[in-house]
Amino acid sequence: MALRDTSLRERVHEIVFEADTAAGKAFDVGLLVLIALSVLVICLESVADYRADHGAALYVLEWVFTGLFTLEYLVRLWCVRRPLAYATSFFGVLDLVAVLPAYLMLVIVDAHHLGTVRVLRLVRVFRVLKLVRYLGEARALHAALRASAPKIVVFLLAISCLVVVVGSVMYVVEGRESGFDSIPRSIYWAIVTLTTVGYGDISPSSGLGQGLAALVMLMGYGIIAVPTGIVSAELVRGQRESTSTQSCPGCAAEGHVDDAVFCYRCGERL
Amino acid sequence: MALRDTSLRERVHEIVFEADTAAGKAFDVGLLVLIALSVLVICLESVADYRADHGAALYVLEWVFTGLFTLEYLVRLWCVRRPLAYATSFFGVLDLVAVLPAYLMLVIVDAHHLGTVRVLRLVRVFRVLKLVRYLGEARALHAALRASAPKIVVFLLAISCLVVVVGSVMYVVEGRESGFDSIPRSIYWAIVTLTTVGYGDISPSSGLGQGLAALVMLMGYGIIAVPTGIVSAELVRGQRESTSTQSCPGCAAEGHVDDAVFCYRCGERL
Amino acid sequence: MALRDTSLRERVHEIVFEADTAAGKAFDVGLLVLIALSVLVICLESVADYRADHGAALYVLEWVFTGLFTLEYLVRLWCVRRPLAYATSFFGVLDLVAVLPAYLMLVIVDAHHLGTVRVLRLVRVFRVLKLVRYLGEARALHAALRASAPKIVVFLLAISCLVVVVGSVMYVVEGRESGFDSIPRSIYWAIVTLTTVGYGDISPSSGLGQGLAALVMLMGYGIIAVPTGIVSAELVRGQRESTSTQSCPGCAAEGHVDDAVFCYRCGERL
Amino acid sequence: MALRDTSLRERVHEIVFEADTAAGKAFDVGLLVLIALSVLVICLESVADYRADHGAALYVLEWVFTGLFTLEYLVRLWCVRRPLAYATSFFGVLDLVAVLPAYLMLVIVDAHHLGTVRVLRLVRVFRVLKLVRYLGEARALHAALRASAPKIVVFLLAISCLVVVVGSVMYVVEGRESGFDSIPRSIYWAIVTLTTVGYGDISPSSGLGQGLAALVMLMGYGIIAVPTGIVSAELVRGQRESTSTQSCPGCAAEGHVDDAVFCYRCGERL
Repeated sequence: MALRDTSLRERVHEIVFEADTAAGKAFDVGLLVLIALSVLVICLESVADYRADHGAALYVLEWVFTGLFTLEYLVRLWCVRRPLAYATSFFGVLDLVAVLPAYLMLVIVDAHHLGTVRVLRLVRVFRVLKLVRYLGEARALHAALRASAPKIVVFLLAISCLVVVVGSVMYVVEGRESGFDSIPRSIYWAIVTLTTVGYGDISPSSGLGQGLAALVMLMGYGIIAVPTGIVSAELVRGQRESTSTQSCPGCAAEGHVDDAVFCYRCGERL
Repeated sequence: MALRDTSLRERVHEIVFEADTAAGKAFDVGLLVLIALSVLVICLESVADYRADHGAALYVLEWVFTGLFTLEYLVRLWCVRRPLAYATSFFGVLDLVAVLPAYLMLVIVDAHHLGTVRVLRLVRVFRVLKLVRYLGEARALHAALRASAPKIVVFLLAISCLVVVVGSVMYVVEGRESGFDSIPRSIYWAIVTLTTVGYGDISPSSGLGQGLAALVMLMGYGIIAVPTGIVSAELVRGQRESTSTQSCPGCAAEGHVDDAVFCYRCGERL
Repeated sequence: MALRDTSLRERVHEIVFEADTAAGKAFDVGLLVLIALSVLVICLESVADYRADHGAALYVLEWVFTGLFTLEYLVRLWCVRRPLAYATSFFGVLDLVAVLPAYLMLVIVDAHHLGTVRVLRLVRVFRVLKLVRYLGEARALHAALRASAPKIVVFLLAISCLVVVVGSVMYVVEGRESGFDSIPRSIYWAIVTLTTVGYGDISPSSGLGQGLAALVMLMGYGIIAVPTGIVSAELVRGQRESTSTQSCPGCAAEGHVDDAVFCYRCGERL
Repeated sequence: MALRDTSLRERVHEIVFEADTAAGKAFDVGLLVLIALSVLVICLESVADYRADHGAALYVLEWVFTGLFTLEYLVRLWCVRRPLAYATSFFGVLDLVAVLPAYLMLVIVDAHHLGTVRVLRLVRVFRVLKLVRYLGEARALHAALRASAPKIVVFLLAISCLVVVVGSVMYVVEGRESGFDSIPRSIYWAIVTLTTVGYGDISPSSGLGQGLAALVMLMGYGIIAVPTGIVSAELVRGQRESTSTQSCPGCAAEGHVDDAVFCYRCGERL
């Protein structure tokens, strides 16, 4: 019986944690739908009109979802080989966070915002994205983004410095009455402007301020080119390299040119 | 006479449905102009001042267009080989939708918005775009867009998840008084911000909210690079493939100019 | 004396119309500065405060510029070989437009807006851009833009259709009270949104309207990639082709590959 | 003792001005943290609430930072070989500007905005970016930006002309009541619109004005492609050049992988 139990656990583990069997894929798709519906319910619950009209139905639905996610969490705990390692892993904690707020809201009375934490369930979608990872599209995109990341971080650091200096200058130039009432708020304005969002909740009113703002905008217009250029270049490189999936029979080197006949590392015929 | 009738139907079919003869092209261009004018009339009709001043003229014009489109619809039904298949096809339904609202407005009294449905006539423009499809420009663009579509869909899915999480966080951080009065509305704000539209109808007022918003904007600034990079890379690939398909029989060199007759490396005839 | 006069006219023509001699370049740079200053004066004149304080000085400066431009126009008319052809050419008319409004303002009393026409003097800057045209930078940019133009036109046509349909739908969905009071105005909103400008003077207030607007924004976010991709791809192609400046000694063919040894057209050794 | 003193100065110079030793790197990182903290204090000081609550603590912290930066400035002056050359260099002046305002604020009573000048300390971060310059990421980015700079300048000049003409036209078309009350302000609006920032503090209200604005937006939408394309193309070129500089001595093939030892085509040792 211990053997049968183990094999059952292994089979359940296969379904719940992996996505290579048909049952595993079906489980993942079901989970995806469940997460989406659950998030939809949370969203609708936050709308005053819906809560007034269909509050009871939403409440019941919410508990159905919480029940199902609790069951899923317990099953995961049961079938995984090292439950503690799972429970303290990133996705383990997330799985707990997906159900805990609902129970806490029973105990704590005034927990208005606690319920919103449940929306973090959506992050669990990325667990299911194991499925997507196998698609070539997402892989190419992921590779290009990973390659561009360090350049984009360097770029965002430079932008941050620019934004602090611009914000401080505008704080001095524009008075309190235009909304530039502190340096942090001026920095917020600088970000809103440089990224071309432009809410208009804070906007310069003096001639000098508008002139400086115009300069910042033109700068932002030229600067937006940089991250785009980085990702474009990476994707172009990715395409060029994507056909060289061969590995050398002699030294196992990869990354050969498209029409290579000999290994670039050991000179072996491919 | 049956024969003559058939050949007439065939000739009309050639003109109305195809675009390879001169008459067919003229018909398509005429239809294009008619659609554009008809949409213009609908637009002007919606402006209160124009309707007050030139209401009668617009009414007459509208019926002229409806009459012509009705005639066109009947001609199409008559000359097509399988009228039912046409009537239930996408463009068949669209052709009917282009004329039906005008007649329905005679019967139903209070049909203010029904008239606007007629603007869908514009979609019929794409029927005429058979013409454009033959232009190399549009073809290259179309190929690149088709190749980028799956990557962009994956990207928009990721954006959707991000937007729901960001919207929920802002719903918690910002109060009801800043306009973040429900999660769906906060998600709307997140989309407005991330796409750098930035209306300013809803904007964070607290320090923490503004800080988070600034982070979202910088993120959006980095993220906008992705779809652009995808399309750029596809177009670059398209160019590369449109020039270098031949390889030299003498030295196997590739990358010849489009209309090359001799190999650029060894001078061999291609 | 006729000979001397002719040679003077020729020399003046060389200075005024060409930019290959030192004097010609100096003339062009001087004209550039004059145009810039003149436009600056027009701008300052439109500011109520400046007009009140320095109205007289600006008035004098304006007449100095008008005098100089009139002189220039007369010199151009005198030294050009076919004065009528010049006077009716694009730049000839522009040169006249640069001075005429000032004189007309003497005759016509209430010519508030006539003065602003003088700002068209700025377009004359492009006459001087003959200078810039010789810079490699501008040439590469110009070539890429010319190559991308047809694709971008096709793209803008598609956008126009999209914008009319979206505007009409929003006109129906949103009421008069949100600012969507006619289809043209709704189309204006659709353009403001799709291009991510987002003034916020018109913005949807109903839930359905905000949902549709969010869709339009995400679409615009994906769509903005297209013109960028087009120009990027053209510039990448421009670089790849830019090194092949060789022309075949046998058949004068151009556009050879970078490391070509033989002509692709006639097989001649380069 | 003179010798010992000299060697101490040389060692201090090594630490303070260079970044190749471990001590030099540690000094730079420490300085970076100090600058960041100091700027944070200046930002917090500008927020009315913080100044009211923690004014004394911020004041003390500010003087600690000023003291440390003064010490650093004196050490730099002492250990550098030519103190005058350093004191009049760009970074020398900046180092002085970083400490001077604090002392001036002791003397001058009403120096509200003088304190904000201290935020220029942030520019000193770029001195420490010697560190970053050694990273391959930043170098590739820097090279691409330097190569794109002239093209982007030409582009921004063209945009400036466009913006002045568009602003003047809108000044004529739109009245004073929509906010277009002078040409400079209309130019400011044109920049806000063309760069897709779109505050909404000034926006057209007449039909004609909105139509023109829509045209400008569509133009801006197409134009934003240009700088992006420029940077993308430069980065793609950078990649291409960083991999293919070698050519095979046996068969003259190019396009080898970066660390290739053997030719991919003929197997010859490179």
